[in-house]
Amino acid sequence: MAKFLVTGGAGFIGSHFCDAALAKGHEVTVFDNFETGQEFFLQGAKKNEKFSLIRGDIREFSEVNKAMSDFKPEWVVHFAANADVRRGLERPRRDLDYNTTGTWNVLESAQKAGAKNFLFSSTGSVYGEPTVFPTPESCPFPEQTSLYGASKLAGEGLIAAYANGFAMNSLVFRFVSILGARYTHGHIFDFMKRLKNDASHLEILGNGKQTKSYLHMTDLMSGLWMAIESQPKGHNVYNIGHDDALIVDQSVGYICDALKIKPRLTYTGGTRGWVGDSPRIQLDCTKLKALGWKTTQSLEQGVRDTVKYLEQQAFLFAEVK
Amino acid sequence: MAKFLVTGGAGFIGSHFCDAALAKGHEVTVFDNFETGQEFFLQGAKKNEKFSLIRGDIREFSEVNKAMSDFKPEWVVHFAANADVRRGLERPRRDLDYNTTGTWNVLESAQKAGAKNFLFSSTGSVYGEPTVFPTPESCPFPEQTSLYGASKLAGEGLIAAYANGFAMNSLVFRFVSILGARYTHGHIFDFMKRLKNDASHLEILGNGKQTKSYLHMTDLMSGLWMAIESQPKGHNVYNIGHDDALIVDQSVGYICDALKIKPRLTYTGGTRGWVGDSPRIQLDCTKLKALGWKTTQSLEQGVRDTVKYLEQQAFLFAEVK
Repeated sequence: MAKFLVTGGAGFIGSHFCDAALAKGHEVTVFDNFETGQEFFLQGAKKNEKFSLIRGDIREFSEVNKAMSDFKPEWVVHFAANADVRRGLERPRRDLDYNTTGTWNVLESAQKAGAKNFLFSSTGSVYGEPTVFPTPESCPFPEQTSLYGASKLAGEGLIAAYANGFAMNSLVFRFVSILGARYTHGHIFDFMKRLKNDASHLEILGNGKQTKSYLHMTDLMSGLWMAIESQPKGHNVYNIGHDDALIVDQSVGYICDALKIKPRLTYTGGTRGWVGDSPRIQLDCTKLKALGWKTTQSLEQGVRDTVKYLEQQAFLFAEVK
Repeated sequence: MAKFLVTGGAGFIGSHFCDAALAKGHEVTVFDNFETGQEFFLQGAKKNEKFSLIRGDIREFSEVNKAMSDFKPEWVVHFAANADVRRGLERPRRDLDYNTTGTWNVLESAQKAGAKNFLFSSTGSVYGEPTVFPTPESCPFPEQTSLYGASKLAGEGLIAAYANGFAMNSLVFRFVSILGARYTHGHIFDFMKRLKNDASHLEILGNGKQTKSYLHMTDLMSGLWMAIESQPKGHNVYNIGHDDALIVDQSVGYICDALKIKPRLTYTGGTRGWVGDSPRIQLDCTKLKALGWKTTQSLEQGVRDTVKYLEQQAFLFAEVK
């Protein structure tokens, strides 16, 4: 059993990670500023005596440093981030503050507190617009196309340098978009929110042909834990995604089918939904599969589970910023 | 003729760039905090009426933003950096503050002031310990081994995202170590400083077999200007180095020969001079050569010119921190 400090542990992915860690008998401290995290995602976790919760902001070194030196975790699992890929150019300092400087704050305080293991949620966006599909971790040195991707790549670089310099063990995962319960951010959320106001029409950013891989929360969790339990040494980077992909129009089809509506679809046009959007995301996950990992949920199931969850928790559309 | 704002313009490389820009008839404003820059490197430049100098720190957004909005340059040439590769782990926030956040400050203020062209001095250190030699820009996605490399890679990523997001034109150069007049940082400086105190003995970090490429200032300047004058569009990354390389022992041989001394050499051992040192740096510069660039100075000449300069300006050993 080990002590896990989980930044962003009240978020969509973080809260699932905490539930899994507690179910395995680990001790868990969440560090979250509740900007996008939701306290009720931790309803179950809070009933566990091995769980504790700290309100704090990774942008403040002193706050995360105090949490780290008080708890002295063996594992630091760093999910806290600005995950708003799309609006980077409107608020160009935000990705840097959260995802780069924030990651440094977490990393430096982890190192000072003697944490030897560090897990980081990076993103397939660090590949920009790749030239190789599916894209392996060792693809040609990419060009950044979004501030989100650039800020996460910077976080990865810091972690690699710390792992090499301070003999830490690190797991960097490059995520695709994740689907499943507690989903509160992304195209399904946006589409359903708009369809609640007007079920007769849906405007889609881009031409609807963007091709993206997704992953069900169940499969994400099994991948993260398989890597953690392999007791990694040194710096390790893994893609984590599904072999399948969906074009935006397919995804919209599943959503509308699940909601039993037939809105008129219009398109803003272009191969990208926004400046910095990647027209195609499809990761090669051979490396993670070599640990024994495989996906069990189809992407259609992922979309349908997400829609079902959001229908049951419709208050989230008002709650989540 | 254009207006160039040069950060770090009082430094080793920056001051040569300013001299060249003024010689070509451009208008130049230097922005430098004089932490490592030297006012006397700008002796010549200061006599030119197209030259002006601002004391300021890139770590302070308001300072660089004021300089940028007052001068409104067409080109921003960003050399200001923490260039102390070796001591990253002792002061692990410094690379982030100077090379990542500092770069963001310069970039954002450039963008706000309407500057359309941005040149950045990155480093071959972003390749970590590459698997391909000579290393091309498109080599496999590397792992960072130093905070310096990580912080410069982060700077590169920000520039690429801005170039893509705000339609700026950018030139990112991945430098090897530069040699020539005004050299005030690196192994030749360190060795000569120590040999001044004790010419009978020289301790070398590592096993003396580290293999590194270098480049003469003359060849660096011709490469930068060739790329600038090609009027680049979009985001462009170029390696800049020499096809030749020196092992540390060779370099020491040239230095001692030039100084006419024969110190006893001892080695700290290991294939790396320090944690994060790269045992081999050799860049593939095919891409820059395609613009017509070629080197004219041998590495031996580079070392000898550097030694000669430092012998003539021996007061620098006391002056430079």
